[in-house]
Amino acid sequence: MSEFRKDPLSDRWVIFAEGREDRPNEYRLTNYQRSATRCPFCAGHEEDTPEPLAAYRGNGQTGQSDDWLVRVVPNKFPALTADVPLDTAIRSELQVQPQTARPAGCQLRFTAVGSHEVVIESARHVAGMTELSDEEVRLTLQAYQDRLQVLGQRNDLRYGLVFKNVGPAAGALLEHAHSQILATPMIPAEVHRELTMAAQWSSVHEKCIFCDLLEHERADGSRIVDQSASFSAFCPFASRMPYEMWILPQQHQSDFRQLESDQLTELAKFLQRILKKLESLHSHLAYNFFIHTAPFDTPALHHYHWHIEIIPRLTTTAGFEWGTDFFINPVLPERAAQAMRV
Amino acid sequence: MSEFRKDPLSDRWVIFAEGREDRPNEYRLTNYQRSATRCPFCAGHEEDTPEPLAAYRGNGQTGQSDDWLVRVVPNKFPALTADVPLDTAIRSELQVQPQTARPAGCQLRFTAVGSHEVVIESARHVAGMTELSDEEVRLTLQAYQDRLQVLGQRNDLRYGLVFKNVGPAAGALLEHAHSQILATPMIPAEVHRELTMAAQWSSVHEKCIFCDLLEHERADGSRIVDQSASFSAFCPFASRMPYEMWILPQQHQSDFRQLESDQLTELAKFLQRILKKLESLHSHLAYNFFIHTAPFDTPALHHYHWHIEIIPRLTTTAGFEWGTDFFINPVLPERAAQAMRV
Repeated sequence: MSEFRKDPLSDRWVIFAEGREDRPNEYRLTNYQRSATRCPFCAGHEEDTPEPLAAYRGNGQTGQSDDWLVRVVPNKFPALTADVPLDTAIRSELQVQPQTARPAGCQLRFTAVGSHEVVIESARHVAGMTELSDEEVRLTLQAYQDRLQVLGQRNDLRYGLVFKNVGPAAGALLEHAHSQILATPMIPAEVHRELTMAAQWSSVHEKCIFCDLLEHERADGSRIVDQSASFSAFCPFASRMPYEMWILPQQHQSDFRQLESDQLTELAKFLQRILKKLESLHSHLAYNFFIHTAPFDTPALHHYHWHIEIIPRLTTTAGFEWGTDFFINPVLPERAAQAMRV
Repeated sequence: MSEFRKDPLSDRWVIFAEGREDRPNEYRLTNYQRSATRCPFCAGHEEDTPEPLAAYRGNGQTGQSDDWLVRVVPNKFPALTADVPLDTAIRSELQVQPQTARPAGCQLRFTAVGSHEVVIESARHVAGMTELSDEEVRLTLQAYQDRLQVLGQRNDLRYGLVFKNVGPAAGALLEHAHSQILATPMIPAEVHRELTMAAQWSSVHEKCIFCDLLEHERADGSRIVDQSASFSAFCPFASRMPYEMWILPQQHQSDFRQLESDQLTELAKFLQRILKKLESLHSHLAYNFFIHTAPFDTPALHHYHWHIEIIPRLTTTAGFEWGTDFFINPVLPERAAQAMRV
């Protein structure tokens, strides 16, 4: 059974999930082997994945039929298992009580409850989100929203991270366009840090730090990559990676679930345009993106602002990054944004 | 010129160092090209590196002669430049003052002062620390100590990280056994978190958290990999990576510079033994190690304990890790330690 453990020196959570080493990895295969491999995400191979949690046909119709454009299925090799009741997890918490042994008391662990889902972005075997139709991207974003809505109603989960891995250097194992949603009973450290810093800023300035940042970036312009009616994309001031980009709604909005239907359609087009800019600079680029949004139980925060972070995997983190949490970036964001504005 | 920038949402520092893309990368070459490449770290090629900062002959004699076993040179492609005076750096801090524009005020930047050095661990072209002689390992650790001592006397630097990258997946570009020392004017976020957590623990329990942890690990035994007279190696309870290991002195000691000569000799043998265990499990394993030690200006802390963290690069961090600072580890530390105790 999977378990969560917390490192007492960094407050960082680790999910121990044995069995995930058995996951199929297309990128370890030769071209010949790959061409002979059956893709579990393609139309017609629906029995290769667990029963779907949702399926989308065109024009917003949902349904479980074979005639799907986008599907959501449970991850076959989940990092977190969905079916452990919360009370069991809590009973197993702190197997050794703090009072009996101090160090064991700081070695916090409990059964890894949660949910790990896969969003299959197309019925066709396409590799990139940029190869999807407008409708497929829109339905993919719709699926993110719907699944966060459903997961957020469970009383054992506090946060859901939507993320996407593209290419082996970014941790992807399968080529067919897909993203994932991992929901956990705790707020992740990285999100917790953002929430804390944003709350501090707001307590001094009475304003959302993201709204402030965006206002500054739009006035300055040097790091802006592109804008649509409702969204802006820029390379952040302290980008960790070359060509890192964030996408934010221009109007204050703390929760991705609050995004309205017409904005979702606009975002689908805008996201694809931004990813095309990235791919035009580096073909076969490995990248990750993820959505940072408000925790499930606090959707309406005046100091937080949902956003998408796109992380191209162009440098390798080494001992210095692991030992310090510093990053070394050879490309200034002003230069990166300029290259992508062309 | 390089510059530091701080992300206002994570408190994370990024070093922007243009020009580092020009670094030679042996691992991108074919075998044929590599055999024809001149290694800048081999004996006889001393003119390929900048003037040495230190050189060590056998039996503890130091000197600048050609007859060296271990050398320290400035990094030819430094992430940080050593020769910017501190007052220049401080003058360039906050190019836009906080009062003129709030977002710019949270976009902290200053000229990247610091030091970036390379420790060449052998005059012979060997790839792994396990191929070094006892004396070469001892002198390498001696070089770490000496350089931290020298760097710690500069009034513009607060922290020095000793680290080692082995293999391309761990960020190494050259094969010849070497490690690096990067010294910065601020305490890195990762070290700051450890110091904070350790201080909190100590304020409640009146004891060093590392001493407590080590006592618990030695009594429990399930995560212990190996021990010598003065040192213990164990797989940490919340290991981020399969086969991650920490090495700690058994007696409380907060600063690596405090390690005495005979303990240094013992540590050299112990470290090599531990790395051999790791390599026996996975040949050509990519890994990083780094030393976490007290900041330069607070060497004697009753609540902090220097240690070496060894991070095998056996899994790829993906969107989930980047978005949450969680890790997913398929191997429990108890299983990893058992495999390495054999």
